[in-house]
Amino acid sequence: MRFGPDILARCDALAAISEDRDRLTRTYLTPQHRAAGETIAGWMRDAGMEARFDAIGNVVGRYVAADPNAPVVVTGSHMDSVVDAGRYDGIFGILAPIACVDDLHARGRRLPYTLEIVAFGDEEGVRFGVSMLGSRALAGRFDMAALDRRDANGTSLREALVAFGGDPAAIASLARRGVVAYVETHIEQGPVLLDAGLPVGVVTSIAGGTRLAVRVEGLAGHAGTVPMPARQDALAAAAEMVLAIERHCAERADTLVGTVGKLAVAGGGAINVIPGAVEFTVDLRSGDDARRRAALAAVEAECRTIAARRRVTLAWEPFFELAAAPCDARLQAQWAAAVAAHGVPVRHLPSGAGHDAMEFAKLAPIAMLFVRCGNGGISHSPRETLAVEDAELATSVFLHFLEHFDPAPFSG
Amino acid sequence: MRFGPDILARCDALAAISEDRDRLTRTYLTPQHRAAGETIAGWMRDAGMEARFDAIGNVVGRYVAADPNAPVVVTGSHMDSVVDAGRYDGIFGILAPIACVDDLHARGRRLPYTLEIVAFGDEEGVRFGVSMLGSRALAGRFDMAALDRRDANGTSLREALVAFGGDPAAIASLARRGVVAYVETHIEQGPVLLDAGLPVGVVTSIAGGTRLAVRVEGLAGHAGTVPMPARQDALAAAAEMVLAIERHCAERADTLVGTVGKLAVAGGGAINVIPGAVEFTVDLRSGDDARRRAALAAVEAECRTIAARRRVTLAWEPFFELAAAPCDARLQAQWAAAVAAHGVPVRHLPSGAGHDAMEFAKLAPIAMLFVRCGNGGISHSPRETLAVEDAELATSVFLHFLEHFDPAPFSG
Repeated sequence: MRFGPDILARCDALAAISEDRDRLTRTYLTPQHRAAGETIAGWMRDAGMEARFDAIGNVVGRYVAADPNAPVVVTGSHMDSVVDAGRYDGIFGILAPIACVDDLHARGRRLPYTLEIVAFGDEEGVRFGVSMLGSRALAGRFDMAALDRRDANGTSLREALVAFGGDPAAIASLARRGVVAYVETHIEQGPVLLDAGLPVGVVTSIAGGTRLAVRVEGLAGHAGTVPMPARQDALAAAAEMVLAIERHCAERADTLVGTVGKLAVAGGGAINVIPGAVEFTVDLRSGDDARRRAALAAVEAECRTIAARRRVTLAWEPFFELAAAPCDARLQAQWAAAVAAHGVPVRHLPSGAGHDAMEFAKLAPIAMLFVRCGNGGISHSPRETLAVEDAELATSVFLHFLEHFDPAPFSG
Repeated sequence: MRFGPDILARCDALAAISEDRDRLTRTYLTPQHRAAGETIAGWMRDAGMEARFDAIGNVVGRYVAADPNAPVVVTGSHMDSVVDAGRYDGIFGILAPIACVDDLHARGRRLPYTLEIVAFGDEEGVRFGVSMLGSRALAGRFDMAALDRRDANGTSLREALVAFGGDPAAIASLARRGVVAYVETHIEQGPVLLDAGLPVGVVTSIAGGTRLAVRVEGLAGHAGTVPMPARQDALAAAAEMVLAIERHCAERADTLVGTVGKLAVAGGGAINVIPGAVEFTVDLRSGDDARRRAALAAVEAECRTIAARRRVTLAWEPFFELAAAPCDARLQAQWAAAVAAHGVPVRHLPSGAGHDAMEFAKLAPIAMLFVRCGNGGISHSPRETLAVEDAELATSVFLHFLEHFDPAPFSG
């Protein structure tokens, strides 16, 4: 194997750079962010690239084309992590293209475009509660109001960025021009490829989503004295809604996922009290915005019917919406060709998770290659696994893609 | 009206004796317990009774028969409250018989038995987490290990009792002998009489109960990336169990109530994470122990079926069981005669809530008279109401009961 073992060894090395002693946690603008970025920049330079931190804390490596006016292709992924994270999420999408460039460089092969590999400083949004800060800046979509957000210790993003050596005033100038494509490889973070027995897959679309806060109010009562027919039990009503949302999405499982991730009896509840109020969240996602909006309307109608029948009130409050980011058909076809060239059946699949690629969707055509996630598809967990054979194959596919990529149809 | 207005005025006076400024909270062995008890003892003496605090902090009033060897009938209820309580729960069952004795005494009427009216110091169990301490002591069922229990400030029950002026060493001597009957009147704390349009009802049985802790473990996962059919969602599984428990009890609503009062996603959950584990409680009650046990087995089987189908594990742990306390048929008949003598249709109903009477069930025949709870049947809440007409009628029924009670069939 040419790539797999080295890439996994580098994943291990980066996983050791953690804020927490016994688990991987690496958040934005920390000393561990600095250390991981410098390590990555060193590997970029070893591979024949220019590399440096930018004003927002991304590490940007450039493999410059012979023609200084050549178009630019951007790739990369994020170097930050969630709390108690896996070691491949994000990182693989940085290390795979570095390995490709290393190989090209060793062979003295230049590309007809400049390749930028970016290790984004923040994608997960753990520290400041707003995600994809790194890719937003490059996509020209950075909201300067985010600089006033504060972490759990009261430090503002602006203060942390200055202390890190970044430059809030230079963020606007990071916005890229002349990018003809953004491509990214990432661990799937789900079980689709694993269940299909395939090492890689071509992403069709990054799902859009709606998030809701729901509050159900019934009537608290004594668990012993209120007969069943007289009850207005907020928890039983919420339970019926949870199942209605699940059923609606399960019946449309090819295009929709829906999750009630938080649910709590108001005030914590008591064993001998009929719950008077319950709050829960809904996270609804689809690669197809129209289907997502239709599902949202349908489950709201179902929940309102449940509420009316059970004589409880329903507050239904969407508070976040993100449009889906479809992947470019021509780029998908180029990924597919690279996969097929390796004798692997081409599987297309949507991405249910968000990725840095989303932020570039309005700037340039985007596309992604997923690599199989082991261990049931678990991610955002130390139980996340990536097989060395899959790392090898995905990197080889990436190299094929880069060597065969023709920027012409995407220019001008 | 002879009784109602004075009784409601006394309820108001006691409600003003509270640990909290703007709401009624009166827990065991507090200065407010002392003040309420002294107020009650004064009213007992005004009614011609002997009255004093006993070693566990109950106030005991005696309306002594002419014959010092006459049998003893005990009545009363509790003077402690839940946090943010209603003002009739417990208190009405103390004040109604005091009003009866006041009337008997004014007429110079002695009874062929000694009547003890007890204002129990603890029934709700708020302060030390174990309930009915006062009635348990009189029933000879006090568990001395409870003396080592501590309140939220770390004060033990033993320390608090000594500071109050009680005597831990004398608790065992409080156990009553020669009690031929225990009767109690109490606000219903539910909507049955209200819905039936009746001011009072005769209790058939005080429900027994089982309490369970249930833990459902599935598999946490990314809300965007795990397709619906691949999920092992602990919350959706728990929701289905909540509805199964509700359905089973609703189909047997004449004999059974079941409540899931607490339910929480382990760790609080996150909007974008499929819940990996959920914990909830079940409170199952019936006046008929065999039906309760059958229901427990049936809902456990249903929940295990749900768990198996959804590929989640189930930990099902009953941690508390209390047998039902049936009311004595002859005493029920005497209550019914007193109700009928007032031209009121006789309604029999079970008590879903626990009461001091339960503790006496092994010592003597017990029986209870419920008085209608207004405002939808709400109790354990400042929204609890008792109509003055209902207080009047129930007290008059109680007086009729006391004047017609013949201890002979219950003696020896």
